[in-house]
Amino acid sequence: MRRTIPGERYRERLARASEATAASALDGLLIGVGPELQYLTGYEAITSERLTMLVVLPSRPPAIVVPRLERSAAEAGLRTPVNTVTWGETDDPHSVVVGLLSASAGNAHPRFAVSDRLWAAHLLRLQAAVPHARFESVTPILRPLRIVKDADEIELLAQAAHAADRVVAAIAGGRLVGRTEADVAREVRDRLVAEGHDSAEFAIVASGPNSASPHHAASDRVIEAGEPIVLDIGGVLGGYWSDITRMLWVTGGDPSRGPADEFVRLFELVREANAEATSAVRPGVACARIDAVARGIISAGGYGPQFIHRLGHGIGLEGHEDPYLVAGNEEPLPVGAAFSIEPGIYVEGRYGARIEDIVVATDDGPVVLNEAPRDLYVVDG
Amino acid sequence: MRRTIPGERYRERLARASEATAASALDGLLIGVGPELQYLTGYEAITSERLTMLVVLPSRPPAIVVPRLERSAAEAGLRTPVNTVTWGETDDPHSVVVGLLSASAGNAHPRFAVSDRLWAAHLLRLQAAVPHARFESVTPILRPLRIVKDADEIELLAQAAHAADRVVAAIAGGRLVGRTEADVAREVRDRLVAEGHDSAEFAIVASGPNSASPHHAASDRVIEAGEPIVLDIGGVLGGYWSDITRMLWVTGGDPSRGPADEFVRLFELVREANAEATSAVRPGVACARIDAVARGIISAGGYGPQFIHRLGHGIGLEGHEDPYLVAGNEEPLPVGAAFSIEPGIYVEGRYGARIEDIVVATDDGPVVLNEAPRDLYVVDG
Repeated sequence: MRRTIPGERYRERLARASEATAASALDGLLIGVGPELQYLTGYEAITSERLTMLVVLPSRPPAIVVPRLERSAAEAGLRTPVNTVTWGETDDPHSVVVGLLSASAGNAHPRFAVSDRLWAAHLLRLQAAVPHARFESVTPILRPLRIVKDADEIELLAQAAHAADRVVAAIAGGRLVGRTEADVAREVRDRLVAEGHDSAEFAIVASGPNSASPHHAASDRVIEAGEPIVLDIGGVLGGYWSDITRMLWVTGGDPSRGPADEFVRLFELVREANAEATSAVRPGVACARIDAVARGIISAGGYGPQFIHRLGHGIGLEGHEDPYLVAGNEEPLPVGAAFSIEPGIYVEGRYGARIEDIVVATDDGPVVLNEAPRDLYVVDG
Repeated sequence: MRRTIPGERYRERLARASEATAASALDGLLIGVGPELQYLTGYEAITSERLTMLVVLPSRPPAIVVPRLERSAAEAGLRTPVNTVTWGETDDPHSVVVGLLSASAGNAHPRFAVSDRLWAAHLLRLQAAVPHARFESVTPILRPLRIVKDADEIELLAQAAHAADRVVAAIAGGRLVGRTEADVAREVRDRLVAEGHDSAEFAIVASGPNSASPHHAASDRVIEAGEPIVLDIGGVLGGYWSDITRMLWVTGGDPSRGPADEFVRLFELVREANAEATSAVRPGVACARIDAVARGIISAGGYGPQFIHRLGHGIGLEGHEDPYLVAGNEEPLPVGAAFSIEPGIYVEGRYGARIEDIVVATDDGPVVLNEAPRDLYVVDG
């Protein structure tokens, strides 16, 4: 049974956002289509050139500005009552938003916080409409709320993780040699949806030397026996993301085409880094510290320069969100933070390896949501 | 055989964009991930919090700033040579971009144009990094280029349109009564991909009273005999969008459950508006004029207030782009413009109807890319 976020939760989130707006001496939050809107209201609006904007003001009820032709869709999509203000096709929606901000008219230099994914085209128009205002990111306001996942959110992340686990098992158990990466990626996407995802968002299938490119786009390269595959897949289930990486080595059924010694060495380093970094997770530990644990192991093994990305990223309504596990980020992990742990080593022109799990920081230590084995999957393919 | 845009075309587009930058006395174009980047370089980058940014300067070669871990992916995705500048996970990518703008350092108030879908989070950081600069939308620079589709682009739009036509035929010929809108929407998405789309982007399946909501999100409502369905679907094929709307009426095989008289009346008005507006398409005619033709017919029929949206939108690398066929837009249609013509009537609480085609303005008049019949599909369902 899929978990859903109760409507009451959205009301609470909106109230807390309004309080934080007042506490930060901001004059309003201007939330466009995207994860922030979804977090605060449950509404998954269509992203388009037509402006949809939630306006959260200190100590006043929120309002949402929507295109007239999407009024019914908005009312159906909002999970908590929000006053709806519509604009017609020949109106200027940015003026409608500015009209709602009139309470700040007495402030010579009002400050507004905007959602991170708001289109620049919209921000530029708002800036032109209120030239004396200061605009900043809403993330400092919403981060403390969003970074702490509640039990319903963790359950949805777990359901997404387990669905992705099953897809990994199916792909690892199926035919691979002789197929293109793109063809396998299509199968991944189909299986993510078949396993309960609402949408498949990405499918990195990086074979042979392509495995050394962390964000490789599945290509027309044909998978051969005797090479590794990075399988890094994810999608959205009930609003929440999955994201898992496992390593395969395809032999084509030929024992002489088993894993190369150098590859096994770097794979084992990655596995140890994943395990040790996971063990280091507990509330209060700095994000940078978890990254350093993994990096220390890989550096000691001689592959430090080949670990070319951060250790991990938060996950929730966005595939990548706070907290980021990266050098320099000294913020302590709160209870309820959910994030990836995904050390990797990339030897250009040869191969790469990465192992990624979604982990939640709890008072009892790390809870790893993914259950797929973290071994190297040596398969006939 | 799927058409592809030749690599040489991207070199030409970049050269024209650089010329237009100089001609507009702009100091640079800052192009984030999205359709503008795809138009200029062919690169379909991953959208994420990590900055990818093409920098186009007047009379200098372009450069692209990419995350280090995406360097290989970028080099594989760029369809024309562009100097690649990477940033590491602990670098500040916005500073890297600003460093490339140093040629403008002598200008007290440089002007930069940014892509419309750049995240506000990135624009705010760029604005903070160059506080004396003025930022504006890149659309006035790129619109004259992008609005004129070349033969390859029109061929891709036609391939996408024909694939969508086939999906309409399959859905209209299949079972509908007793299924939920969401279930039919899933079938639409599967079929769009099966018919050659790279991705299915939307599937409006609006049955019964839901048909009165133009952007209805397919719901758990079960389709019944004796009601209309708005089927408005689209996706991306070779980078270019499809977008078609057709009207179904499901009888459940019961002749007494045929189309209601009022519904037929409004459907015929919509069909006439679609046909007459299409006939009015020719280069040089103002966009607003085409909208007015359709609106005049629907208003004369008594449903003017129920035609609550513009007549149409341009289509290409974006589902909605210039030109917009809307009152007030007096820009003349250029040869090669591609856009939707989609009049609609929405009677709240009862039903709605819309018919949408993709049309290209040519010297010989309108070329309608969709070939699916525009009749009311009265089906057993």
